[in-house]
Amino acid sequence: MSEREGARGTNQLRPVRITRDYLPHAEGSVLIEMGNTHVVCTATLTNGTPRWLKGSGQGWVTAEYGMLPRSTSERMRREATGGGQGGRTMEIQRLIGRSLRSVTDLYALGDLTVTVDCDVIRADGGTRCASINGAAVALYDALRRLGLKRHPMRSLVGAISLGVVGGVVLMDLDYREDSSAETDMNIVMAEGGGLIEIQGTAEQRPFTREQLDRMLDLGTAAVAKINELQHKVLEV
Amino acid sequence: MSEREGARGTNQLRPVRITRDYLPHAEGSVLIEMGNTHVVCTATLTNGTPRWLKGSGQGWVTAEYGMLPRSTSERMRREATGGGQGGRTMEIQRLIGRSLRSVTDLYALGDLTVTVDCDVIRADGGTRCASINGAAVALYDALRRLGLKRHPMRSLVGAISLGVVGGVVLMDLDYREDSSAETDMNIVMAEGGGLIEIQGTAEQRPFTREQLDRMLDLGTAAVAKINELQHKVLEV
Amino acid sequence: MSEREGARGTNQLRPVRITRDYLPHAEGSVLIEMGNTHVVCTATLTNGTPRWLKGSGQGWVTAEYGMLPRSTSERMRREATGGGQGGRTMEIQRLIGRSLRSVTDLYALGDLTVTVDCDVIRADGGTRCASINGAAVALYDALRRLGLKRHPMRSLVGAISLGVVGGVVLMDLDYREDSSAETDMNIVMAEGGGLIEIQGTAEQRPFTREQLDRMLDLGTAAVAKINELQHKVLEV
Amino acid sequence: MSEREGARGTNQLRPVRITRDYLPHAEGSVLIEMGNTHVVCTATLTNGTPRWLKGSGQGWVTAEYGMLPRSTSERMRREATGGGQGGRTMEIQRLIGRSLRSVTDLYALGDLTVTVDCDVIRADGGTRCASINGAAVALYDALRRLGLKRHPMRSLVGAISLGVVGGVVLMDLDYREDSSAETDMNIVMAEGGGLIEIQGTAEQRPFTREQLDRMLDLGTAAVAKINELQHKVLEV
Amino acid sequence: MSEREGARGTNQLRPVRITRDYLPHAEGSVLIEMGNTHVVCTATLTNGTPRWLKGSGQGWVTAEYGMLPRSTSERMRREATGGGQGGRTMEIQRLIGRSLRSVTDLYALGDLTVTVDCDVIRADGGTRCASINGAAVALYDALRRLGLKRHPMRSLVGAISLGVVGGVVLMDLDYREDSSAETDMNIVMAEGGGLIEIQGTAEQRPFTREQLDRMLDLGTAAVAKINELQHKVLEV
Amino acid sequence: MSEREGARGTNQLRPVRITRDYLPHAEGSVLIEMGNTHVVCTATLTNGTPRWLKGSGQGWVTAEYGMLPRSTSERMRREATGGGQGGRTMEIQRLIGRSLRSVTDLYALGDLTVTVDCDVIRADGGTRCASINGAAVALYDALRRLGLKRHPMRSLVGAISLGVVGGVVLMDLDYREDSSAETDMNIVMAEGGGLIEIQGTAEQRPFTREQLDRMLDLGTAAVAKINELQHKVLEV
Repeated sequence: MSEREGARGTNQLRPVRITRDYLPHAEGSVLIEMGNTHVVCTATLTNGTPRWLKGSGQGWVTAEYGMLPRSTSERMRREATGGGQGGRTMEIQRLIGRSLRSVTDLYALGDLTVTVDCDVIRADGGTRCASINGAAVALYDALRRLGLKRHPMRSLVGAISLGVVGGVVLMDLDYREDSSAETDMNIVMAEGGGLIEIQGTAEQRPFTREQLDRMLDLGTAAVAKINELQHKVLEV
Repeated sequence: MSEREGARGTNQLRPVRITRDYLPHAEGSVLIEMGNTHVVCTATLTNGTPRWLKGSGQGWVTAEYGMLPRSTSERMRREATGGGQGGRTMEIQRLIGRSLRSVTDLYALGDLTVTVDCDVIRADGGTRCASINGAAVALYDALRRLGLKRHPMRSLVGAISLGVVGGVVLMDLDYREDSSAETDMNIVMAEGGGLIEIQGTAEQRPFTREQLDRMLDLGTAAVAKINELQHKVLEV
Repeated sequence: MSEREGARGTNQLRPVRITRDYLPHAEGSVLIEMGNTHVVCTATLTNGTPRWLKGSGQGWVTAEYGMLPRSTSERMRREATGGGQGGRTMEIQRLIGRSLRSVTDLYALGDLTVTVDCDVIRADGGTRCASINGAAVALYDALRRLGLKRHPMRSLVGAISLGVVGGVVLMDLDYREDSSAETDMNIVMAEGGGLIEIQGTAEQRPFTREQLDRMLDLGTAAVAKINELQHKVLEV
Repeated sequence: MSEREGARGTNQLRPVRITRDYLPHAEGSVLIEMGNTHVVCTATLTNGTPRWLKGSGQGWVTAEYGMLPRSTSERMRREATGGGQGGRTMEIQRLIGRSLRSVTDLYALGDLTVTVDCDVIRADGGTRCASINGAAVALYDALRRLGLKRHPMRSLVGAISLGVVGGVVLMDLDYREDSSAETDMNIVMAEGGGLIEIQGTAEQRPFTREQLDRMLDLGTAAVAKINELQHKVLEV
Repeated sequence: MSEREGARGTNQLRPVRITRDYLPHAEGSVLIEMGNTHVVCTATLTNGTPRWLKGSGQGWVTAEYGMLPRSTSERMRREATGGGQGGRTMEIQRLIGRSLRSVTDLYALGDLTVTVDCDVIRADGGTRCASINGAAVALYDALRRLGLKRHPMRSLVGAISLGVVGGVVLMDLDYREDSSAETDMNIVMAEGGGLIEIQGTAEQRPFTREQLDRMLDLGTAAVAKINELQHKVLEV
Repeated sequence: MSEREGARGTNQLRPVRITRDYLPHAEGSVLIEMGNTHVVCTATLTNGTPRWLKGSGQGWVTAEYGMLPRSTSERMRREATGGGQGGRTMEIQRLIGRSLRSVTDLYALGDLTVTVDCDVIRADGGTRCASINGAAVALYDALRRLGLKRHPMRSLVGAISLGVVGGVVLMDLDYREDSSAETDMNIVMAEGGGLIEIQGTAEQRPFTREQLDRMLDLGTAAVAKINELQHKVLEV
């Protein structure tokens, strides 16, 4: 395996920076930078819930995901110009929404929907994980505005990408590493290490239980670090 | 936890039946039944490959997935009537395609595309796993027709759903079990136990490493059994 | 003209088989086989009616039609994947819906909509007629569940395709015959021989009044036979 | 049955007027008026044929149909503003295309496509028949420009709507009559009385063979009259 | 610069003709001809207003625009057949709607929407201006039917296209002139010369303040003339 | 009229800041800030031109425009999620494309297309003008990479919004001012004051020639200032 960018260790995160209140209008908004992956995450509160929740006493949290056409090395088709959102986009926004809901007490929200938008400004691998990490902070900020006695999030939530490159398990892959990975893994965890989502894909050859275990170990440590940073910027 | 349908054990598959040559026209076609989940899988060979593979020397395997509107308990909107395929459909067909490609030597296909259609006639949980299990057989049959010295599939591929219901890990969930599961997991494996895809989602509360390990153990055994059955019906 | 498949006479139906309760969830469901044309027909009851019928005191019966991509000799584009339903599909489902409504007392349904889905699993000519023949049985079964003193269908309804091939009038064309037919005709009739729908198209050269009369005579006999079979499987 | 508008007899056409060269640009263009139904028909010649005809030596004739939103009593949704063409529109334009192709020697066209547009300016029943009657003239004019030794149309083509209203067979129904018809019939014929298309629908109760025969007799006479008029305006 | 068609002066309108009550059903309908540009304009009254106006006490006026596919020299794609309305169509119908609203007292309409359809039958340049000129008359007629003490339109509205061709400012360009214009300008004015909309585009090279002033002078005179004609046909 | 934000004079621009090379991948990329309106502009070079330019010897410059859903005070629907780009979006991106083309020698580009993406991160009025101002710099940078002897842009291009608020002409309106403006104007100019595009709309009451003249005077001065800044950041 070749050197990692910036002489990074196999179990080392890229520099993470979270800027709160990035946009003036949103109830919660964050710019999250994980290396050269930059995502704007906003949380919008709206009265009412989707039709199929009416009368359930439950609120809703949903997410949408997009990429600027030239956030990537090759320009991507703008999804608005025809054909709508592709399969990859839908998968990612469904993942973000599920991850946020899994740590939120939806009954505490009442008749309220939170829409979280994650828009990638620069992409260098790991955009869905960066989105979840930033979205958790934006959601926290937005829900804080409700002034409830108890904040509706039971815990923060963090995510990390991992992979097997040249037989070696790496944490927090950048785009170059991701492109040549034999296995691609995303792990979402609640604080304390409970597993929320695990998605692993063999791109070229199957991966082993040992590699999976190594990825779970590294992932658990990484998310703990991210949770720490989230707490720090949220001052909670 | 209440009894399983048919007094099934926690680590027991539903009855699996695979009928080859189910449709007269397709190069490969299968009806797979896993309990009350019935899926028609066909494999179609077409000359040429998608534009972005031109000149790569590589063939392609892709999948499409659909459900009859009344395969389910409540009638679903027909995706053709407006709005097109939803996010869930796209996620599933991308998973099927990736799983099949991961065990196929695409360079051996040459300038050829295989389109695998998985259409659910009855749904009772585990439709994506049944689709993969049936699609592997249909693909094998279709590629056999090429008469290559060496069959382009390096191995068969099998899939199984698992879940945590009332704190207990169950194998091969039916719809009723799936609806009340705290965790929902799908595992795709090559023969010999190599991991191809793992997708786990906490529906209500996080799951633990121990539960994950238990699901991986049960899943490995289940896929081995499915591979055995695939070999038997394929007579290879 | 060459021999018909299976030494069938010009005025002879292919073997017809109707399996009731084919799917576990639907209020009415049927697998109908007319030779190698197999169609799954389901009838779903839903409360309420389309907006433009509100307050009219009238219920509604509507139909949707689809084909599995590889029900045919060449794989068809899946209509859900883009572009939606084509003109042929819409024509057929409008025909099925009209045919069913013409024998149903919509006022007897009250505030209820029946959606009939006809999905072709194998196609070998005459799919629209097979759909109508199966749908009538599925609809009958579904409406029986309402437990009304008088069943809302005034009569059953049957359909048959006919054609002129090499100058000879044939009944119940298979795909090979249909492809070379000079004239293509579909007749829908109520029990007793009342005409509900007649659609005849000259594919290559005009047809004559004499040929039309011959097709009407044969069609009347064929539908009577189909009605007989429907009654037998419905046990009414 | 109440009086017909203008004291018209049951077997009497509304006044028909065909204005050739109605639009300055089209290779053939016609305004056809059948009573208060006014349709602009244009024929456009384009080099090349659809992909699936490449190399067949055959040209193509196709049709598109539309209605001005306020051609009707109630304003209709503009099909361009969302959702695209509805089922009725597609049925009609497929009928017009088939009717024109059935009297045209497509091999004589060579590598050429004719697109016939039929746009309804005022609608008062019978728009699809008026479209065919006008389109035949526009097509004839456009093809005349090719200067072939022999004109590619083997014959003209005409169409007429008929119906059963209050038990009485009427020719060339206007909108009011059409709305209350028990049966609705459209007949397309080549010159000389050969049948090209027959479409009959029972709107409320089945119709009889006797009524069908009466409609065929009246229709044959009506189309003969329309063909006469077409010849006169075409001066052929 | 070459001669204008019909030896028209640079500051001369093409012949304008407005036919009221062109269609039998619409509340207001007009055929406007400006030279060889012919547009059918209809105004339809509907109860209710768009959702975002509910409770505002304000009515609404909106416009839709379309062209017959062969109104132009080359056949255009029918917007209903796929892809929907293009950017140019949307721009034009938004302009028509804004222009009409700017002279209408929306509060006087109450809970009412007027939909104005402008459909181009023949196109020879200046279709958006002809649409506005005709639409103003159709709208006036439709609103007159409300029988309000005071007509809700504060003034009529007129529009004219201008351009710079070969360095010379021309009024009311036809298609040939428009195609070679260096600058393309549309001016919409209320009676009395108040500016409602001004849209100028340099097609090849920038235009000067002097040219802009000349176009404004000519445009003011042209709209005054059009208003005069509108009053005459409306007899107000 | 109330005070302007930040005690700005009626003829004063908001602070303008242009950051070059904002995104790592694009051939040209800029973040432009005009007060609280922030737009990311990228220019992408691609080989080839649209089909309708093939063989013309001419290259192409086109633009796409989008807004982050929460760039605005109320969250906007994401255009990718259904329905595609709205009329306003299309109008704006057509304007940006025309403006850039009007100062570019398309023949100097050869067989090349430049796609300029303008994505609004924060919106506070004047987004289309900010887009043009930033896009001109991104386009300049991208074309500089071609290393042509003579840069294909004949001049830079700038744009400014103006309006009449409470009867007073204001330059560079923010969102609050724009919402209450009686007239809304956008002016695009080449260097040296040549007019490229002028779009003025009376939102409530017509505007006068005097107001138009005042807006043109202020606009000319503003664009000159913007051009100066563009030159400075481009160091040309």
